Amino acid sequence: MVGFENSKISGCDSTTVINLDQGNPTAFQEYWTKMKERCLVVIPVWELMSYFSDMSNVCWFLQQDLAEAIKALHREIGNASTEERYIVVGTGSSQLCQAALFALSSLSEAKPLSIVAAVPYYSTYEEQVSFVQSQLYKWEGEARTFNKPGPYIEMVTSPNNPDGTIREPVVNRGGKVIYDLAYYWPHYTPITRRQDHDLMLFTFSKIAGHAGSRIGWALVKDIEVAKKMVQYITINSIGVSKESQIRATAILNELTKTCRIKSESFFEYAYEKMKSRWERLRWVVDKTGDTFTLPNYPQAFCNFFGKNTSTFPAFAWLGCKEENDLESLLKEKNVLTRGGDQCGSDKKYVRVNMLGLDNDFEEFLHRLLTIRIPKLL
Amino acid sequence: MVGFENSKISGCDSTTVINLDQGNPTAFQEYWTKMKERCLVVIPVWELMSYFSDMSNVCWFLQQDLAEAIKALHREIGNASTEERYIVVGTGSSQLCQAALFALSSLSEAKPLSIVAAVPYYSTYEEQVSFVQSQLYKWEGEARTFNKPGPYIEMVTSPNNPDGTIREPVVNRGGKVIYDLAYYWPHYTPITRRQDHDLMLFTFSKIAGHAGSRIGWALVKDIEVAKKMVQYITINSIGVSKESQIRATAILNELTKTCRIKSESFFEYAYEKMKSRWERLRWVVDKTGDTFTLPNYPQAFCNFFGKNTSTFPAFAWLGCKEENDLESLLKEKNVLTRGGDQCGSDKKYVRVNMLGLDNDFEEFLHRLLTIRIPKLL
Repeated sequence: MVGFENSKISGCDSTTVINLDQGNPTAFQEYWTKMKERCLVVIPVWELMSYFSDMSNVCWFLQQDLAEAIKALHREIGNASTEERYIVVGTGSSQLCQAALFALSSLSEAKPLSIVAAVPYYSTYEEQVSFVQSQLYKWEGEARTFNKPGPYIEMVTSPNNPDGTIREPVVNRGGKVIYDLAYYWPHYTPITRRQDHDLMLFTFSKIAGHAGSRIGWALVKDIEVAKKMVQYITINSIGVSKESQIRATAILNELTKTCRIKSESFFEYAYEKMKSRWERLRWVVDKTGDTFTLPNYPQAFCNFFGKNTSTFPAFAWLGCKEENDLESLLKEKNVLTRGGDQCGSDKKYVRVNMLGLDNDFEEFLHRLLTIRIPKLL
Repeated sequence: MVGFENSKISGCDSTTVINLDQGNPTAFQEYWTKMKERCLVVIPVWELMSYFSDMSNVCWFLQQDLAEAIKALHREIGNASTEERYIVVGTGSSQLCQAALFALSSLSEAKPLSIVAAVPYYSTYEEQVSFVQSQLYKWEGEARTFNKPGPYIEMVTSPNNPDGTIREPVVNRGGKVIYDLAYYWPHYTPITRRQDHDLMLFTFSKIAGHAGSRIGWALVKDIEVAKKMVQYITINSIGVSKESQIRATAILNELTKTCRIKSESFFEYAYEKMKSRWERLRWVVDKTGDTFTLPNYPQAFCNFFGKNTSTFPAFAWLGCKEENDLESLLKEKNVLTRGGDQCGSDKKYVRVNMLGLDNDFEEFLHRLLTIRIPKLL
């Protein structure tokens, strides 16, 4: 535990709303500000005009340099196999998730295909599955109690959003699995194995914080699935922004190039940052007595760092024993979080963005300390 | 008619495939190449990291500068009212079209809502409406024979894709209308009025040729419709690439700034380019006797140019009296086009991209001349 003083957590005006609901990953901005001219993207006006990037590729709108950058980074970090896989780029991993649902359900004989995820799950899955009321697939919620016969898709997010746990499929009846590995990077969790599943999703947003670019990618084993995903993105948005693709390429290449240089490595920096925030949060939660709870995560050997590391998730899954609506309680303190009920769980929990700006995070800790003051005295 | 000699249309290797199926708008690249350093976009690595652009805006992911650039250009060209309207930015107008379908059908009591368009229609509408098999809306095809009672949405594209005609709604029974005004710019058609419909879609791709950016915008009168469209884009892709938004901003501002300077104006340049291509195409069609047909368009006074102009559509709607499958006939000549059947019409017609590269266009004319050679002798 970090032994910092309560007084170090200096509050700002308590009427200011602190938004830790969405997972806006602005925490890493200070690292990039120090990079100055690195990864500067310069785009002349006559470039990137065509819809097409590479007509010989299954994913015709994928910039070839981006594909190379993705493969190089996964190889260096050791978190996912890219060999014998198709890369499908998307407008963030949200679009790719919908493309994957479309692909797997289109290729399935049974429709609507049941879509499940173990509670607590990423709240947006339910919206993504349900919002257009597709007849191809249907949200069935909690995977652990799912018992409909026939084919299904299980969403497996590991480390999990919202609670940071390492996940495996729970249904295990031969259904398809979409692995959302948005947070399987060494600053969030130990890299214990090279993931090699049939369908894996990654997002550029959560690696190093460039959420505004809306870039994600899927690593797909089956060409028919890849083709159908490309069909979805073709109809949905006729491809993916090329400006974002070339910027993501430059930044991913920089991550790869510097990842073994301790003084420059983003992953070293971000690991320390996440560790520090989590230690501060745990210190505060500890100070509040047994009012709040946080999950505990086991240590494991990280193949990338070459040492035992812990999990420092991008979200805190904060619980409150004595409060039936933690989201509302925090809202009274002008702290916006996502209620556990939106994740298929209980209102005793909230999901708190751990990747916000420094000031917002400090202010959040400050306000947390002011709750249940009597116990602190 | 332009009196150029047949010999000026010099053919390349006739086995080379000329792709005029998709509407890739690369014709204008030469204009932008001459612009050199103008609109150069430079993005430092620490910028554009947040998901959010303006939380006070209904469309929270819309960059404020882009909104201003859109309004300024419409004001200068006089093609659409932006006053008392919400601007929703999308990943191209495809995503916006789906967002509009979602919005209007979600707000309608009758579901599935019928979606219609007058033949020939943009082939992708049918795919956009049908692909995820939504229970919110249903493709009903040809608007002219549509007679189901109750609410409906009519897609009105004007000038029309694929045939360049000026369109108005044909059902007129109080349904909602989505106006796709992708081609309502002065180089394609006379600007005869400032369009002021409830829901109008525009795309950055077809104004000046930047299709790789995937930027479109909707001008929306009803805040509830705008909110629902934003909800669609939030779930579908959590916003729109910021890199593309700032590049589109720079380019739209350049279009506005130079549009009244005859020697620099993109619209002057593009009007001459489209006019020249259409004159060459009509000359070739004329040369082939009565084998091929093209629509004729009336002249009208263009408020922007301040003179009578004609319509020079981004696609040619080429017909063939004596051939039942024109797409296949052209394919034998290694020219890829889109069959009229895909637009709800007849295989006697094809849609030909008029915005391709110069060489491809010339080669297309050359091959067209080689069809029905006997008549040319």
